[in-house]
Amino acid sequence: MQHRVSYGETDTMGVLYYAEYLHIFERGRNAFIRAFGISYKDVEARGLYLPVREARCRYRAPARYDDLLQLAVFASDWRRASMIFQYRLYNEDQSLLLAEGFTQHACVDGSGKPVAVPAWFRECFAIPCPVASGPGR
Amino acid sequence: MQHRVSYGETDTMGVLYYAEYLHIFERGRNAFIRAFGISYKDVEARGLYLPVREARCRYRAPARYDDLLQLAVFASDWRRASMIFQYRLYNEDQSLLLAEGFTQHACVDGSGKPVAVPAWFRECFAIPCPVASGPGR
Amino acid sequence: MQHRVSYGETDTMGVLYYAEYLHIFERGRNAFIRAFGISYKDVEARGLYLPVREARCRYRAPARYDDLLQLAVFASDWRRASMIFQYRLYNEDQSLLLAEGFTQHACVDGSGKPVAVPAWFRECFAIPCPVASGPGR
Amino acid sequence: MQHRVSYGETDTMGVLYYAEYLHIFERGRNAFIRAFGISYKDVEARGLYLPVREARCRYRAPARYDDLLQLAVFASDWRRASMIFQYRLYNEDQSLLLAEGFTQHACVDGSGKPVAVPAWFRECFAIPCPVASGPGR
Repeated sequence: MQHRVSYGETDTMGVLYYAEYLHIFERGRNAFIRAFGISYKDVEARGLYLPVREARCRYRAPARYDDLLQLAVFASDWRRASMIFQYRLYNEDQSLLLAEGFTQHACVDGSGKPVAVPAWFRECFAIPCPVASGPGR
Repeated sequence: MQHRVSYGETDTMGVLYYAEYLHIFERGRNAFIRAFGISYKDVEARGLYLPVREARCRYRAPARYDDLLQLAVFASDWRRASMIFQYRLYNEDQSLLLAEGFTQHACVDGSGKPVAVPAWFRECFAIPCPVASGPGR
Repeated sequence: MQHRVSYGETDTMGVLYYAEYLHIFERGRNAFIRAFGISYKDVEARGLYLPVREARCRYRAPARYDDLLQLAVFASDWRRASMIFQYRLYNEDQSLLLAEGFTQHACVDGSGKPVAVPAWFRECFAIPCPVASGPGR
Repeated sequence: MQHRVSYGETDTMGVLYYAEYLHIFERGRNAFIRAFGISYKDVEARGLYLPVREARCRYRAPARYDDLLQLAVFASDWRRASMIFQYRLYNEDQSLLLAEGFTQHACVDGSGKPVAVPAWFRECFAIPCPVASGPGR
């Protein structure tokens, strides 16, 4: 997924504000799921919700207004009732890793009760990831 | 209502980003309603919703990181199924008008159908406004 | 310009939050300027800044999570030291106008002093707009 | 520090969006620094900048629109050229821990070069923390 840094995402230091990375990560995991033929909206329509239990981001180099960023997303750490999305954010030509992070998601039903990861959801990701990846992984 | 400008609300120009004023206006109208003894959450719990139909803001002078802003809010233009909140945003000592704007709200029920402004809601604002006001109005 | 509504842009009512339209408008005018072969970052690098003096948005129909929106942008109302960008936001197939608005911009130099709109900037937009447009204009 | 959850901070799930916690953490560390008689703006004016190197948040229970949150902030892990702010976010009566996290900050000068934590900055925090704390620490 590509993301163009807007003015509204930057701060007085002239760089992408640290909370905005989590918005970009959300856009990335939505695009990642959509690349497998299902949208997260469909996932919720089937009664599966994935609230974030933990988020972490390591900021390695700043991004600035108008920069075009490249985001690579991976699904990992499948457990009984949780899973992880990992993120790597690169500059335009993918020569520089700007940030990396992950979000851990619980699997819950519409009432918020933990449920096992459904087979249909996990199987969505069984085929190799079709989205762009960065170097040096 | 007072509002301290955070880093995340500023942009590369070093000033409060123009969309953030609408967030501050929302905080202001919530505080304004609460000053009359009811919260907007209670308003919704009674089945009345006030979606924004129009928003307008005129930016007169920039606000910067760490500035303490003063917001004055007024209810006006009561019509059959809509009303307006007006906003004036001042610097800390209220010597300078930074921005002014308004939001027009429809009155709708839980299904989105327009409803007349209920008497109980309008009467909330019948007493003089207890919140701070700026000079030169 | 297309824009996919993210989770973080929605609110408790389940719709795109009203301040987020101004972020989308900013993305739209940046994409609009870029479509003419120059980025707003380049504009600033040449010493021309376009702070927002007024913003207005009329909300006609809600947008929801995961909706793909279509934004049309126009430059208009060129005055000596200001100009206007107009916006029309449509649903995915452009059958429904969701919102319309404008932002008025002052032309200032690096020190914030008003300057006349430079010929090179206005001439950028002399050719017909290459970006998508909606019906019924 | 107290924080009232606004509509604009919530999402379609009806809860405080996960990136907003980092905005609240920023407000909290600014209020924390200010409680020691100096603002982060003053810190920058003295030539010391504290960009975020890593952020982490663990989400334990959701916060909803209009909730009044209590945030406790601590400075810790002082190293040669970095330090950590820790955060604990509670519900209004501090009976429930909603989230906890930390941000690690580099100490750099105006050109972005790492510098040792100045004595004057560290000494700001030498006196016991004057801000509110939660139970169970």
